[in-house]
Amino acid sequence: MAEKKQVEQITSMEVDFAQWYTDVVKKADLIDYTSVKGCMVFKPAGYAIWELIQKQMDERFKATGVENVYLPMFIPESLLEKEKDHVEGFAPEVAWVTMGGLQPLTERMCVRPTSETLFCDFYKNEVHSYRDLPKVYNQWCSVVRWEKETRPFLRSREFLWQEGHTIHATFEEAEERTVQMLNLYADFCEQVLAIPVIKGRKTDKEKFAGAEATYTIEALMHDGKALQSGTSHNFGDGFAKAFDIQFTDKDNTLKHPFQTSWGTTTRLIGAIIMVHGDDNGLVLPPKVAPTQVVIVPIRQQSEGVLETAQKIKDELTAAGLRVKVDDTDKSPGWKFAEAEMRGIPVRIEIGPKDIEAGKAILARRDTGDKSECGISDLAGTVETLLDTIQKEMLERARTRRDSQTYTATNREEFDKIFAEKSGFVKAMWCGDVECENKIKEDLSVTSRCMPFTDEKVADTCVCCGKPAKHLVYWGRAY
Amino acid sequence: MAEKKQVEQITSMEVDFAQWYTDVVKKADLIDYTSVKGCMVFKPAGYAIWELIQKQMDERFKATGVENVYLPMFIPESLLEKEKDHVEGFAPEVAWVTMGGLQPLTERMCVRPTSETLFCDFYKNEVHSYRDLPKVYNQWCSVVRWEKETRPFLRSREFLWQEGHTIHATFEEAEERTVQMLNLYADFCEQVLAIPVIKGRKTDKEKFAGAEATYTIEALMHDGKALQSGTSHNFGDGFAKAFDIQFTDKDNTLKHPFQTSWGTTTRLIGAIIMVHGDDNGLVLPPKVAPTQVVIVPIRQQSEGVLETAQKIKDELTAAGLRVKVDDTDKSPGWKFAEAEMRGIPVRIEIGPKDIEAGKAILARRDTGDKSECGISDLAGTVETLLDTIQKEMLERARTRRDSQTYTATNREEFDKIFAEKSGFVKAMWCGDVECENKIKEDLSVTSRCMPFTDEKVADTCVCCGKPAKHLVYWGRAY
Repeated sequence: MAEKKQVEQITSMEVDFAQWYTDVVKKADLIDYTSVKGCMVFKPAGYAIWELIQKQMDERFKATGVENVYLPMFIPESLLEKEKDHVEGFAPEVAWVTMGGLQPLTERMCVRPTSETLFCDFYKNEVHSYRDLPKVYNQWCSVVRWEKETRPFLRSREFLWQEGHTIHATFEEAEERTVQMLNLYADFCEQVLAIPVIKGRKTDKEKFAGAEATYTIEALMHDGKALQSGTSHNFGDGFAKAFDIQFTDKDNTLKHPFQTSWGTTTRLIGAIIMVHGDDNGLVLPPKVAPTQVVIVPIRQQSEGVLETAQKIKDELTAAGLRVKVDDTDKSPGWKFAEAEMRGIPVRIEIGPKDIEAGKAILARRDTGDKSECGISDLAGTVETLLDTIQKEMLERARTRRDSQTYTATNREEFDKIFAEKSGFVKAMWCGDVECENKIKEDLSVTSRCMPFTDEKVADTCVCCGKPAKHLVYWGRAY
Repeated sequence: MAEKKQVEQITSMEVDFAQWYTDVVKKADLIDYTSVKGCMVFKPAGYAIWELIQKQMDERFKATGVENVYLPMFIPESLLEKEKDHVEGFAPEVAWVTMGGLQPLTERMCVRPTSETLFCDFYKNEVHSYRDLPKVYNQWCSVVRWEKETRPFLRSREFLWQEGHTIHATFEEAEERTVQMLNLYADFCEQVLAIPVIKGRKTDKEKFAGAEATYTIEALMHDGKALQSGTSHNFGDGFAKAFDIQFTDKDNTLKHPFQTSWGTTTRLIGAIIMVHGDDNGLVLPPKVAPTQVVIVPIRQQSEGVLETAQKIKDELTAAGLRVKVDDTDKSPGWKFAEAEMRGIPVRIEIGPKDIEAGKAILARRDTGDKSECGISDLAGTVETLLDTIQKEMLERARTRRDSQTYTATNREEFDKIFAEKSGFVKAMWCGDVECENKIKEDLSVTSRCMPFTDEKVADTCVCCGKPAKHLVYWGRAY
């Protein structure tokens, strides 16, 4: 389209994927940089995606019995230090508050990087008897980690997330909740974000500081890099012991309860961009598109055009869709390119000739396909089309992910794939951290997860050749 | 009710209002204290009220064109200092971050006490032409003010709120938005929280640091004390000048734009408690009650009772109501008292005899009134009853507020009222801050607002006797 040049071009993803990403983030108006180094402004178009994620994920949480709470943003240093692994994992990257008003604090506090310690402190007061269990709480909030290198949505000093924290009478119940939430995340990514994910367990090297087991969902970006998209941790009774949380069980003995936590972040928006986007900009799955349909009037000065556009908008809105009319004084071509940049799933074009013929043009953002539709049939047709787009976006992403997933049975094959290609590599591992370290050092490749499967692609470890214990998905990661 | 004693009694509000408030907050399970001094945990029952406030207020915002954004929680010191009055107002009560990870920061940053300075910094990049105006943005977040004395919901070091920040081409447009949001808040309080408010303008002494004009809604609590429940500020172009924000207007000249901000906080939950609560606990207006109807089965072991309770729950839930069945093994009397403590608007009692007679008992939390209703008519009857409760709660609160609103024409009357009673006193004021200071010093009474009215209750200032300029609502305040 010649008119596309009216909109400032974004870098092609084939030429420079990192620059393409930055261009899309800026030109789709999702984010702005600020005077606060490493922190971002979520602009309306970016924040609205997060609101749609929140709403739909929160409904799914609540359907499983989750209740929302809000805990303080500050953690006194002595509280952070109670669990040894946890403090070692987080202390180097927290922001410290040392002054309150004009007075130095007697004990410094960090801004929460995550809230396990605060929830433990809270549960210690709340949980005394088996009758008080389980508690299945979640909070939506922002957290701070003092990162050195930052990238919009993927890594910033402050980010938005949800963190669930639960406490149970038995290990089995905690494990069940850990897996339940992992499955919820995986379903959410597939059904709402149209992003297929690999579910699995993290190796000890990659697990969360203080966790007994960390489960993860891993997605593959357009450039073949992996993105950890959500994690769910089983803490066993480690935190309960460190924080001295005990309850009287049915058998009248004192026991330590078992805990979990699970989180997803605004990084999911980065995943949407890098899984679905193309060289014309953002491509949003309909379920998280703040605007699902843009109506572009053609020759809008002509009699009846804007009125018809508005009438169509009202009908689609009444059908529950999120619709805008672009009646600015820009040219239609400019409006098309802008709507594409912003990832709006469906565009309706309506001009005097269309009105005369009683029809409108529908254009899909994801495929570029155009079709005609009778004006009176628009609501139903567009609803169906949005469902189709949602489903096909998932299928395309799955097909691409699968085509970028390789298998290696020995180190030579493994190295060759990572030298020539980018994607997931399935290969066996002996369970020794030395092999993980070596692969990371040699290739900047990390173990993404051990999938829940009996699949075996070889008998020996891809690194050391000793007998293999686990199938691992390996990849370069964000 | 004899069984009421099973539930730990709360202090009567006549005996000790402050203790009554604390008891209700704790026993209705809204809040917990934490290891972080001055910060609270919002427990599920408390946070769910905030979620309902957020949802309904946010819908009203969006209907007026508000878009949500999210800005960083940190403000570099140099940014905070750009507007003189503003920094003087806030610097003494902020929390300072001085370390990031293991390194001291080159410039310390405060945790936002409010975000005018961040929005100015953001708008400076965003606003260049009249085409970029207006911007009508809001964020839901938490803020920190290093208070010395704290009380749940009313004053804490961290609290949740929304802050709207808008920017306009003209003073008139900014003023219109300021008043529009004040009216939105007032309607919200009346229609959703069932709390009548007085709208008016703050005196210069009481206005926001950096504002040209501050408007407020003031509510009256059960004990006759005022609670500032929301504010809306017109900044003129003061912030734009301090931050050097300029735009090219239609006439091709550079101009400073005009700004507003407006906010409400979790303090509204404190207002709900203190306006509607009674000696049996919380009384929630149906529109913000996380549970609107509790069904208490009587003789629940009898055949068909729990099934019928569940069936009623399903029917009411399908009608869009928020319903719970209390099928715990506590006695009905205990369940009644607990539901009252938690402020659930309607209780349905259903036992074997009721089922036989095809009816159920409905009990109102606000009045204690009981009535019978045919089981098949429950959904419609309860919906109507909730509407009635919502309306009558507002009317009762208005009647009480009016009965606690007095008029004083001179200082003697004024002092006598505040010596004997508690409430709003309408009295004239000359406009001189010295009179405000004197009244505050003598009586701990402050000017709450200058209402939007031509009403005059005298010709002279209630304090100094000089010619009066404004009618003022005076009161003791939280």
